[in-house]
Amino acid sequence: MSNNIIELFLNPKSVAIIGASTNPMKGGNWILNNLTLNNFKGKIYPINPNAEGKMVFDLEIKKSVLDVEEEIDLAIFYVPNRLIPGVLAECVQKGIKGAIIEASGFEEVGEHGLMLRDQILEITNNFSKIRIVGPNCMGITRIDGDSDSDKKGGFFSSFGILANYRRGNIAIISQSGMLNGGYLMHLMTMYPDLGIRYSCSIGNKMDIGEIEFLEHLLHDSTVNVIAIYLESFKDPRRFIKLCREAKSIPNKTILFIKGGTTSQGQKASLSHTGSIAEDGKLTEAIIRQAGVIQVSSFHELFQTARVFSMMYNARKTLPKKGNVAMIVGSGGAGTISADLTIKYGLKFPILGDQAYKTLVEVFPEWMPPNRFALVDIWPAIEKAKDKVNEMMNLVLQAILDEPEVEGLFSMVFCAKRSMDMETIDKRIELSSKSPKPVFYWLIGEHEEVIRISKLLALNNIPSFISLEEMVKTFSLLVQESIHKTKLLNSLNSS
Amino acid sequence: MSNNIIELFLNPKSVAIIGASTNPMKGGNWILNNLTLNNFKGKIYPINPNAEGKMVFDLEIKKSVLDVEEEIDLAIFYVPNRLIPGVLAECVQKGIKGAIIEASGFEEVGEHGLMLRDQILEITNNFSKIRIVGPNCMGITRIDGDSDSDKKGGFFSSFGILANYRRGNIAIISQSGMLNGGYLMHLMTMYPDLGIRYSCSIGNKMDIGEIEFLEHLLHDSTVNVIAIYLESFKDPRRFIKLCREAKSIPNKTILFIKGGTTSQGQKASLSHTGSIAEDGKLTEAIIRQAGVIQVSSFHELFQTARVFSMMYNARKTLPKKGNVAMIVGSGGAGTISADLTIKYGLKFPILGDQAYKTLVEVFPEWMPPNRFALVDIWPAIEKAKDKVNEMMNLVLQAILDEPEVEGLFSMVFCAKRSMDMETIDKRIELSSKSPKPVFYWLIGEHEEVIRISKLLALNNIPSFISLEEMVKTFSLLVQESIHKTKLLNSLNSS
Repeated sequence: MSNNIIELFLNPKSVAIIGASTNPMKGGNWILNNLTLNNFKGKIYPINPNAEGKMVFDLEIKKSVLDVEEEIDLAIFYVPNRLIPGVLAECVQKGIKGAIIEASGFEEVGEHGLMLRDQILEITNNFSKIRIVGPNCMGITRIDGDSDSDKKGGFFSSFGILANYRRGNIAIISQSGMLNGGYLMHLMTMYPDLGIRYSCSIGNKMDIGEIEFLEHLLHDSTVNVIAIYLESFKDPRRFIKLCREAKSIPNKTILFIKGGTTSQGQKASLSHTGSIAEDGKLTEAIIRQAGVIQVSSFHELFQTARVFSMMYNARKTLPKKGNVAMIVGSGGAGTISADLTIKYGLKFPILGDQAYKTLVEVFPEWMPPNRFALVDIWPAIEKAKDKVNEMMNLVLQAILDEPEVEGLFSMVFCAKRSMDMETIDKRIELSSKSPKPVFYWLIGEHEEVIRISKLLALNNIPSFISLEEMVKTFSLLVQESIHKTKLLNSLNSS
Repeated sequence: MSNNIIELFLNPKSVAIIGASTNPMKGGNWILNNLTLNNFKGKIYPINPNAEGKMVFDLEIKKSVLDVEEEIDLAIFYVPNRLIPGVLAECVQKGIKGAIIEASGFEEVGEHGLMLRDQILEITNNFSKIRIVGPNCMGITRIDGDSDSDKKGGFFSSFGILANYRRGNIAIISQSGMLNGGYLMHLMTMYPDLGIRYSCSIGNKMDIGEIEFLEHLLHDSTVNVIAIYLESFKDPRRFIKLCREAKSIPNKTILFIKGGTTSQGQKASLSHTGSIAEDGKLTEAIIRQAGVIQVSSFHELFQTARVFSMMYNARKTLPKKGNVAMIVGSGGAGTISADLTIKYGLKFPILGDQAYKTLVEVFPEWMPPNRFALVDIWPAIEKAKDKVNEMMNLVLQAILDEPEVEGLFSMVFCAKRSMDMETIDKRIELSSKSPKPVFYWLIGEHEEVIRISKLLALNNIPSFISLEEMVKTFSLLVQESIHKTKLLNSLNSS
């Protein structure tokens, strides 16, 4: 039953916008703009007693939901907190099954907000008459197709206007509306290839929260990666159970960041979403039992989501042992990476005969290769002269063919002068074809770095400008695959 | 005396290019290109017995340094390792005082390389006849003026061509040539505001190493930040002594990254610069005693160098207690930042009456502010309506005026639709004027993020897209100022 209601919130057939406005500087206008701009296919009913009869986006504003004859699935509230109980009562009377309340000013503001909360509990009969997402949230976004394609469409109830986006395999569940609004905009302009399927802003989660959305998304096959930000757990046991369930589903990864794990964070969280955050130790225990991948900043959350998204898109095999190889044109970068592999529990294995033979062929006599899977390719570049491309591709393939190697770090020096389009195309092709993850470290002229990074992303190949970020992210792939394997083993043995 | 020789390497009046080439695809051509392109004011003598009499960059190639009548300060070698002993003997005969050897193939390649090394020791009489930088390095760069200004000039002996750069207060000492070549190019295109004064590539440091350069740079008043990458310590005791000396010099900060701190890294380092790296524990002890700021990736090294560089340019007072405030439009970002302050040893203090009074005035009644120096400004933005700019500037100034607050994190949502040039200009002005460091966290449309980031950088204000990077970097300012204070106290009491 909970799943049916979530389906309604993700995919309503008709919505009322409470607080609809003709003023293009108001949130009640932005939500309507968002829905119409992005081809929402359901019915839209703008509601505002102060603008009755006016037209907005070719729709007539009604006084109340009670003046709408047709059935309404969802009501989206963009009105001040004090007006909510009254209108909510009308929604109940109308038989609307769900409400998204975007206003703040509830649990997080103390006494007055708690009074409002009590009124809502009474009107909804403890949410049995109407289910609520929010308050203090940015609504729900469902993306059905890229913004520049014929398939553009979906559901867009945030007041942050989304204009440029890709549909993808990532879902967001967040108690920070910013992640569902401004930050999403940030991500989509920063990484034009990053694809989102759903963005669920749960705010204070007065009724529906992470549990209901997570349960639903686990069984939504269009979603591979679920990125979650919470300030408190609604039901820690159930959260752990669902996260563990995710481990048994192939192609499903949960990434998690918890706000309010420290005394300062708890103070902040209380005045943000009114959350009484669990203390750090309890949180740690929950995360450990849940077996989710924990990150420590929003930047890391989405960097990691992006990489997992690419891994699933490209059907890569996640590394199990942490054996990675590296081909690098800088001894210093190799040395630092080698140190970082230890820090993050990875290792460069010893190369087998086949790969070693290839290296011996391409390296000069004065600087023979060793068997360590960290290949400083510089001497071979000097020897290859005008056959650098061929040599690089040969080495890349030889390393990727090594059974002991589960993935590869590859460095590209990006400079207009030295970039040969053919080279990078072939390297991308080889990297794509391999079932093993290949991560690129890009340095050089910034414009070229951006260009190559986009080329790689189009082929679901992640690139990094920080060696540490690259090594750490690879270690998270290993962590996820170990977790999944452990769970499968424990299921098989029980 | 050591300082005199370093002055010669940084600022030679005449150089010979051994291995000069008319072929624009060869390193021996690139070095000449680099010198002439960048207005090196000294004399240049191209040397190559196979190209005698040919012209390159309007200079006649000579057979040998012995054919040059004038005095030569430095010889820059871009020839294969096996040719070096012979030509080096001629340099000694000519009375040249210093040589930069860029070729690799010495200590790092084992027996044959060690034999070459012994020959060099003999020819130079243990470096008493001629001093050597390298081998296996990218030479020395000295930047006298911005590449697009009349003051363009300096010394450019790397074979990586530098065309766009700013003169600044950062010096690099590195055992990874990449940092002095490709990575430098990367940095300068990524952060067009980043200013470099010297880049010293020490390679295998057969003779001159980090000690000599560090000693010299400590007393060069044009340098505030020294970024060092080492794979081994030449003289740990002296290194510690010099780093401690730096603490007693105002406006001088050393940032440090060590390669080969782990078994894998040591293996890599041995085949890179032939360094027998110290084990991790010894390294840790050296770093602790030296009191330098240690970072763990190249990206972090230069991000941090950039921030310290800006702090010194803007004559900011480094925070001593770690008391920072934050003005943020996202409760979630505030909560995560609050957690991160604990992780990195900072704290949000309690605001004094003056700042609190200002907040009470600008916040709505339904959401009064608290006294915690983490200000979620959203309710005040809603109240301010069309006076958002004035309100933001008022709050910014009030928080900066708080005696307990040593610095500020400020969030800007960058969107063309909502950006008001006047606003950001005024905020930049207030942030600049304050003696306290102000760091900006930027999110929003990527193009706008980049634009605002550049505007801020022009005013020596650092911006970040990762909250963790922002909080961590601020904590490094505190670490540095504590180190400096401790040393001053111990000097005063002894």
